[in-house]
Amino acid sequence: MITAFILMNVRRDAINETAQKLQGINGISEVYSVSGRYDLIAIARVPSSDDLAALVTSRMPILDAILATETMLAFKSYSRHDLEAMFSVGME
Amino acid sequence: MITAFILMNVRRDAINETAQKLQGINGISEVYSVSGRYDLIAIARVPSSDDLAALVTSRMPILDAILATETMLAFKSYSRHDLEAMFSVGME
Amino acid sequence: MITAFILMNVRRDAINETAQKLQGINGISEVYSVSGRYDLIAIARVPSSDDLAALVTSRMPILDAILATETMLAFKSYSRHDLEAMFSVGME
Amino acid sequence: MITAFILMNVRRDAINETAQKLQGINGISEVYSVSGRYDLIAIARVPSSDDLAALVTSRMPILDAILATETMLAFKSYSRHDLEAMFSVGME
Amino acid sequence: MITAFILMNVRRDAINETAQKLQGINGISEVYSVSGRYDLIAIARVPSSDDLAALVTSRMPILDAILATETMLAFKSYSRHDLEAMFSVGME
Amino acid sequence: MITAFILMNVRRDAINETAQKLQGINGISEVYSVSGRYDLIAIARVPSSDDLAALVTSRMPILDAILATETMLAFKSYSRHDLEAMFSVGME
Amino acid sequence: MITAFILMNVRRDAINETAQKLQGINGISEVYSVSGRYDLIAIARVPSSDDLAALVTSRMPILDAILATETMLAFKSYSRHDLEAMFSVGME
Amino acid sequence: MITAFILMNVRRDAINETAQKLQGINGISEVYSVSGRYDLIAIARVPSSDDLAALVTSRMPILDAILATETMLAFKSYSRHDLEAMFSVGME
Amino acid sequence: MITAFILMNVRRDAINETAQKLQGINGISEVYSVSGRYDLIAIARVPSSDDLAALVTSRMPILDAILATETMLAFKSYSRHDLEAMFSVGME
Amino acid sequence: MITAFILMNVRRDAINETAQKLQGINGISEVYSVSGRYDLIAIARVPSSDDLAALVTSRMPILDAILATETMLAFKSYSRHDLEAMFSVGME
Repeated sequence: MITAFILMNVRRDAINETAQKLQGINGISEVYSVSGRYDLIAIARVPSSDDLAALVTSRMPILDAILATETMLAFKSYSRHDLEAMFSVGME
Repeated sequence: MITAFILMNVRRDAINETAQKLQGINGISEVYSVSGRYDLIAIARVPSSDDLAALVTSRMPILDAILATETMLAFKSYSRHDLEAMFSVGME
Repeated sequence: MITAFILMNVRRDAINETAQKLQGINGISEVYSVSGRYDLIAIARVPSSDDLAALVTSRMPILDAILATETMLAFKSYSRHDLEAMFSVGME
Repeated sequence: MITAFILMNVRRDAINETAQKLQGINGISEVYSVSGRYDLIAIARVPSSDDLAALVTSRMPILDAILATETMLAFKSYSRHDLEAMFSVGME
Repeated sequence: MITAFILMNVRRDAINETAQKLQGINGISEVYSVSGRYDLIAIARVPSSDDLAALVTSRMPILDAILATETMLAFKSYSRHDLEAMFSVGME
Repeated sequence: MITAFILMNVRRDAINETAQKLQGINGISEVYSVSGRYDLIAIARVPSSDDLAALVTSRMPILDAILATETMLAFKSYSRHDLEAMFSVGME
Repeated sequence: MITAFILMNVRRDAINETAQKLQGINGISEVYSVSGRYDLIAIARVPSSDDLAALVTSRMPILDAILATETMLAFKSYSRHDLEAMFSVGME
Repeated sequence: MITAFILMNVRRDAINETAQKLQGINGISEVYSVSGRYDLIAIARVPSSDDLAALVTSRMPILDAILATETMLAFKSYSRHDLEAMFSVGME
Repeated sequence: MITAFILMNVRRDAINETAQKLQGINGISEVYSVSGRYDLIAIARVPSSDDLAALVTSRMPILDAILATETMLAFKSYSRHDLEAMFSVGME
Repeated sequence: MITAFILMNVRRDAINETAQKLQGINGISEVYSVSGRYDLIAIARVPSSDDLAALVTSRMPILDAILATETMLAFKSYSRHDLEAMFSVGME
């Protein structure tokens, strides 16, 4: 499972609406509206980097309220939780 | 449950070691080493903002390999997963 | 009571007008026009983080003269004044 | 009454301690540990800009855990609260 | 007398014209076109911070060739010259 | 007369002391401690750019409390005041 | 052989399409869609700096989906691979 | 094959030496000293993201002349060359 | 002779054309298209700072393909070449 | 002839001294102390990019008063002057 954090600046009048649409996209496991310099953080959990490429460079750009993105890929995860098990359920 | 993303720059020779220590701190649910401008992203999931204050301003600073942090609090979460259920198990 | 500082850049010909509108929004306790890199600082004092989410991601975006915001949540406050008492009067 | 926001980056192991010391300084009405790019925000409320000068350029620098400051002076305040009355009590 | 430095980026084809208009505004004592990252620096010398508020948030925004401003208030001045005498002549 | 604005970041415990020393340097007409991202602004008014070179690259560096400088030269000045007359008195 | 890295921000709905067009331009040996602050990285491998000038300042600007570029020229390369041999095949 | 660009700032007196050491590390296919804001760009081509994690967070930090890194992972590559064939020769 | 470096960002489809026009302006001795964060660097060599003011704030703004400029004035030059002789030939 | 602009930040008490040493290095044709965010600009004019590599990554780093450099290579030059003739005299 590949995990990536996508930090986004979003048109200010479309923050909630964009978050709703994002979490419906296959591969996006969570979306948060956040304080600070960014408006939304989405966590993508996908089987392969090709899936991530499709997500970031094809499916997300359809949401034109997203003004800028900065994607950070997780090299390694450290957690008491079994994240692979928790999140790979229902991962096409 | 309050969720926060803590983006960190860490002394380059202590990235893995710091991640291990962080994920052992009560309130930190996941830690990821990441690509891009930051070295680690920790996700804190705690019962109250006082807990978050204690985590960010007291317990984390003990790890002196952390050079700089930028904390982003989640206003709202959007997910198919029941995050509250998944992560509040074992949350003191 | 949750306190947050919302730093804003505002369209230059609408600074006073926007400050007036902001201070009328439920949850905003003070607004200041300021020197420096930002134009306005609003202090939100609300009962819960859901209220803050509604304020930042729904009610404030209606003011389209606001160009960019950077929200900083207060973890802890330190003051001789009893801020909770002073400001929670009239907090719905 | 002159109001100013002093945004600070502070040595990470001295955030709470510095906040405590700051709120004891005459002229500082509130200090908050905050999320985001800064560590502390202090609100100064003083009778004159000379008082502010003394505060920022003489008294605060004594706290060497403060690494950097960015002071924003309030031109005008907008609030339902009578801030002058609330905060000028006890202002030498 | 309150002194403030207002650093400005201005539409490139209106630098001289904007400087002329600025120096005609009551409260602006000098305007300079400058090298570096900014286009103009105006020095405001006014009796009170309310005057400065009116200048920065009401009168200057009328000049729409001004794209961005960053105002720095002087806490204290140090000079062999008696600036108060030199510049308060004719200050309404 | 050549005018230049020298924006400075200064060691926080030496702001006033440095301002005092600066205003004693031949060619520096005014020094201000300021709010915002810089600590001091000095205005140099000198007969030639060689004088300015000597000031910025030789005499000022002696003050080791100055951490960083950003010099902006005035191309042209606009003012009701006769700045040349006011400031060239006593200019060697 | 002159090698240069061209980091690009691209209109978000034209990332793949732009990458396709770029790799068809004579002198561009590889294009990658990437995570982080940029959207695409192109590697140019050309016989002379004139070729690079023509590529960067004439041929690439035709692709108007490219919003900003930052070109970094390679002074020297270090590799087990014989890059000159691998890439100069078919270099007009 | 996973490809990543690692942009680095390096201690100025160790640029060539660090490039030599880097290209000897398993997984690094090319290193270039470059013009612009960075000093070196290394291209990593590895079988899996675990290999990349080991490279970036364990093996590279041993080179203490590296001051800061910014890693950009390639989502997709576009090239006339068969990069997979060219570079996976000898990839453990 | 006053020398100044004018770093420019230019509309990407007008880099060469703008360079051609710039080098025809009286006072501009050389123009270079460059790698890195800027697109063009022009070197102005003029008799006085008034000439430089006219060049930067009046004549150059006519070229609307210039998006942003950052002018750096030379305090002193150091060279084996007699730059004054080489470049003041033909300087009106 | 390859031309490059090397923008430098230099230890403040070594600006003139460093400029003197730089202009003595083979390949550096001019050095200027400058206003603005940088301290020195050196213009390198060398026969090949290998010469430039040696200059930037080997010979210049010996001057430890240089804190940071940003090198911009000229793709093309535009000038009434025959720069090649003027500057290639005496170029080994």
